[in-house]
Amino acid sequence: MQTLWDYRYAQRIQQMSSSIIRELLKLTNDPQIISFAGGLPAPSVFPVEEFKQAAINVLNNSGSAALQYGSTEGFEPLRKWVVEYSVRTGINITTKNVMITSGSQQGLDLIGRVFINPGDRILVEAPTYLGALQAWQAYQAEFISVESDEHGMKIDALDAALRAGPKFIYVLPNFQNPTGRTTSLERRQKIVDLAQQYGVPIVEDDPYGELRFEGEALPSISSLDSECVDIACTLPYAGNVIYLSTFSKILAPGLRLAWVIAPENVISTLVKAKQGADLNTAKFTQMTAHEVCKNGFIDQHINVIRKVYLERRNTMLDCLDEHMPKGVQWNRPEGGLFLWVTLPEHLNTTDLLQRALKEKVAFVPGEPFFPSGGGQNNMRLNFSFSPPDLINEGIARLGRVIQQEM
Amino acid sequence: MQTLWDYRYAQRIQQMSSSIIRELLKLTNDPQIISFAGGLPAPSVFPVEEFKQAAINVLNNSGSAALQYGSTEGFEPLRKWVVEYSVRTGINITTKNVMITSGSQQGLDLIGRVFINPGDRILVEAPTYLGALQAWQAYQAEFISVESDEHGMKIDALDAALRAGPKFIYVLPNFQNPTGRTTSLERRQKIVDLAQQYGVPIVEDDPYGELRFEGEALPSISSLDSECVDIACTLPYAGNVIYLSTFSKILAPGLRLAWVIAPENVISTLVKAKQGADLNTAKFTQMTAHEVCKNGFIDQHINVIRKVYLERRNTMLDCLDEHMPKGVQWNRPEGGLFLWVTLPEHLNTTDLLQRALKEKVAFVPGEPFFPSGGGQNNMRLNFSFSPPDLINEGIARLGRVIQQEM
Repeated sequence: MQTLWDYRYAQRIQQMSSSIIRELLKLTNDPQIISFAGGLPAPSVFPVEEFKQAAINVLNNSGSAALQYGSTEGFEPLRKWVVEYSVRTGINITTKNVMITSGSQQGLDLIGRVFINPGDRILVEAPTYLGALQAWQAYQAEFISVESDEHGMKIDALDAALRAGPKFIYVLPNFQNPTGRTTSLERRQKIVDLAQQYGVPIVEDDPYGELRFEGEALPSISSLDSECVDIACTLPYAGNVIYLSTFSKILAPGLRLAWVIAPENVISTLVKAKQGADLNTAKFTQMTAHEVCKNGFIDQHINVIRKVYLERRNTMLDCLDEHMPKGVQWNRPEGGLFLWVTLPEHLNTTDLLQRALKEKVAFVPGEPFFPSGGGQNNMRLNFSFSPPDLINEGIARLGRVIQQEM
Repeated sequence: MQTLWDYRYAQRIQQMSSSIIRELLKLTNDPQIISFAGGLPAPSVFPVEEFKQAAINVLNNSGSAALQYGSTEGFEPLRKWVVEYSVRTGINITTKNVMITSGSQQGLDLIGRVFINPGDRILVEAPTYLGALQAWQAYQAEFISVESDEHGMKIDALDAALRAGPKFIYVLPNFQNPTGRTTSLERRQKIVDLAQQYGVPIVEDDPYGELRFEGEALPSISSLDSECVDIACTLPYAGNVIYLSTFSKILAPGLRLAWVIAPENVISTLVKAKQGADLNTAKFTQMTAHEVCKNGFIDQHINVIRKVYLERRNTMLDCLDEHMPKGVQWNRPEGGLFLWVTLPEHLNTTDLLQRALKEKVAFVPGEPFFPSGGGQNNMRLNFSFSPPDLINEGIARLGRVIQQEM
């Protein structure tokens, strides 16, 4: 008998991306493959001992509370911690501006649920984060891609795209996924000015901002917007930017904890949407994360992560210098997890991947990150996950594969 | 300056329920209020010590893995545990039929995302679980309510409702939320037969099935469907029922762990949808739950829960006998967390709630559980959360409030 379920998927399911990266990650379960394909933090930097002590403290001191349902907004002391931590982003907020989510992916999903009607256009950088495309395709969004360079979205292209009436602008200003690029201060200011001019709000996705190991931190887009809304920056934030960040990159992704900062009325609507999505985020992990973070541990820990990732980025840059044939180019991100490689135009990285997998090395081809096409000759390389010796061996393998293709 | 966000909510947000229960639970934060309004397990039965030992073991033995991203389907050993545990539901499954979700609420949400187009009709019991209504309203579902009595949906009404072409049938067969009612075996069989006849699949939501403290367990709807699909019940499940259950009621809700059982092709589509929703469920909590459950602890623990809830149900029944004026009726659920009270028809429980709160006692009025109206003179009482002395005092207060109204 035929099941009644399989021909009954909703229209939005037809639109869901083919999950290329997911399929790829399955392939790379082969332990012999050196993978630069994931977006995984280095497991060696997870603070396992601190976490264990925190879990013990939470269960000893408030075990029943930790194992009970929590509020949809999130564990109040953790929201307070976010308020204090966010002083560095330069916007003035209270806990009413903060919601805890089950990873930043859920923040993106809830934003889609609250704001996107079928056919709405979302303005994105080209290339952009694949998870945002996946989240919003479920709500039948369409995408307007804005050509970008090493300094972020090109302003002429942004101006033209804003005329198409997007619902909001989506931007990852720091060490962007997939390119590792950082939007310059001048462009940040321009994005805020143009968004104001056209009356279009902004989603600022900032999972990697604190992982800067070189150069000077730049003001967040929300802080520039905040100045524009409230010159003295003294009122609780009520501007046009929804800001997302996460514990996944500064503590551990296995907690599935992240946060959204937004005007109070937006938060209260996102909270209603989250109630229908998963009621609340696990209180036990929230309380444990708070216990780990509460006494300034996180800043000290971020310094450890920066040091490890700087070494790995440097190793990867050195290995690329050594092993890549002429005609291959790459950038030099000042932080984050990724760098971006550009091959000569006649090469196709999706084809190349099959050969690379035979040589036991993996990367993500550029194409899926461009919703309107492009990126055929690009690849995303993750430098955070593999230790230096594997980076060396993996880039050597990749160099040989590319050399053969050329 | 006016924010650009607040007038831009999607159409689906206009449809979201007013979250009556949520508002109510806020009110009942007053520690003087005795609340029968929640759906909370008794915190005294949370296995805090076992959980602490499990968390320590997980972090000692596989700390880095526990804190890393996991697969979207869920932690493989936990899925295997679900396969073994589900033998009791009488259907033959493999891990390919199982996905771990961030609470059952997420299972409901993902089912909505995968199957519901705007305007699709979902057939529900009247009354039914409010969280399902909330989840599916986000996908602009409409609801067909089927009148129910102490044995579940009335079969004539179900037959008539199936003619309206629902996308699927949603049923909570055991100790239903909000009524505590259990669908009889005869009705279960009829539901499966009619679903077959009309070609309509079924979502079987079973969070409370194991919390039976009296009477005999009845076969799950999925097992009756399975017999119908595969007489020998030997093939991996490929039938017409999606089955949901959860760790929230047998272990602890603060983990946000539940599971979906479905035909393999449905699971793989739900997994794609989950990837866009939150990437994966926290691996740390999955590994810890597996560590707690793996050596048969759960069956022994369920017996503890049953004993506590039986005592509390009995206390509540005795107190209702003692304190309720004539004309008030209630049922006697054989398990679960809730019982259902019916007042004389001229009384309105939504009005009554305001007076009850003044007397420092809370319940949930019946109306929100009826998507097509009804329940004005009903109330849901939770008997699992409050210890016996508070049940006694709370029901005495409630009896006085109702007496005054009559």
